[in-house]
Amino acid sequence: MRIPKHIAVIPDGNRRWAQNNGLEKQDGYNYGLDPGLLFLRLCKKYGVEEVTYYGFTTDNCKRPRSQVKAFSKACVDAVKLIEKENVSLLVVGNAESDMFPKELLPYTTRTNLAKGEIKVNFLVNYGWEWDLSSMELNSRNRKTIMESLKSKEVSRIDLVIRLGGRQRLSGLLPVQSVYADIFCIDDMWPEFSELHFIKAINWFNNQDVTLGG
Amino acid sequence: MRIPKHIAVIPDGNRRWAQNNGLEKQDGYNYGLDPGLLFLRLCKKYGVEEVTYYGFTTDNCKRPRSQVKAFSKACVDAVKLIEKENVSLLVVGNAESDMFPKELLPYTTRTNLAKGEIKVNFLVNYGWEWDLSSMELNSRNRKTIMESLKSKEVSRIDLVIRLGGRQRLSGLLPVQSVYADIFCIDDMWPEFSELHFIKAINWFNNQDVTLGG
Repeated sequence: MRIPKHIAVIPDGNRRWAQNNGLEKQDGYNYGLDPGLLFLRLCKKYGVEEVTYYGFTTDNCKRPRSQVKAFSKACVDAVKLIEKENVSLLVVGNAESDMFPKELLPYTTRTNLAKGEIKVNFLVNYGWEWDLSSMELNSRNRKTIMESLKSKEVSRIDLVIRLGGRQRLSGLLPVQSVYADIFCIDDMWPEFSELHFIKAINWFNNQDVTLGG
Repeated sequence: MRIPKHIAVIPDGNRRWAQNNGLEKQDGYNYGLDPGLLFLRLCKKYGVEEVTYYGFTTDNCKRPRSQVKAFSKACVDAVKLIEKENVSLLVVGNAESDMFPKELLPYTTRTNLAKGEIKVNFLVNYGWEWDLSSMELNSRNRKTIMESLKSKEVSRIDLVIRLGGRQRLSGLLPVQSVYADIFCIDDMWPEFSELHFIKAINWFNNQDVTLGG
């Protein structure tokens, strides 16, 4: 079976899940923590080498203050869970902004925890325009473009898994995702299970990889 | 009904359709011309303001010579059909390369044909890295990034329709498509019909537009 080397996940639907379950919108994020850890363990189990979580974006920060506070805290809590795992952890996002949680600053440099078995990238206060903002006039080919990205340590994405029913990338790493296969799941992120993961990698196994050729 | 202002189409599946119908792979492109014209007329009928066709990419040119010749000719033929319509036509792609069909050079500047009722962008010998290759160090926000793209005359995409069963963007305008909703159709491009179009815009009508907020 052809296993994707690098999977990015868009953990969407926390707020809708909360509302569907009689909770306040911002309370949904907390229920996204366990699925996040499950996702990491499944990636390890199936031999995925690199994982990217779409934490929150600069655009997301336009939401009501209570929600911004809640998803920011959820990202910090998620990183605290992940740092107990055997991972090589990098937090990618605009750390010069006040919206960037101070607790995550140490991880803006890639850090091996235990043996650093699997690469984990966590996008926090990420913006596609921030990512492209160091491009230089000499970035004329793929290699130099990749090297001039703020997210240059994140490699090309093979598979994007998006929960929550939407079918879009929402600004996720536009360069790394140019040839990514995109698998969308109608269930909300707090409902994520191993079955979803298996469906996604089985689907991926049936895609061809041409990279346009 | 909420109609997308700008639809991009990825007309994939010509080669597979040809093989399924006992033809040589490269013969499929010719059967993509009528669907292309139908697509344009449907966009006009439903009030879409801008249309982008994903013609061929620099990556596609790695394919066997007979195929490259065939899809290049199909793009020229498609533009000849489109130029008889009431459109404002722009061909976007690396025109400095030998792979760019000389016949299309006049359209690398936007040209009003008749009353220029609808904007049509046709990507020919397009590459995402070519598109980003004029970015400057001062391109720090959305406006300046958009202005420094080679494809700067192409506006943000609301809806991408992809035929041929794949679920990926394949390098299509990475900046303009950051928030695009992506609708994938299993049928091959030569099979494209009004029913597919109606399904796509009905689906789009049921999506929310948050742009991350």
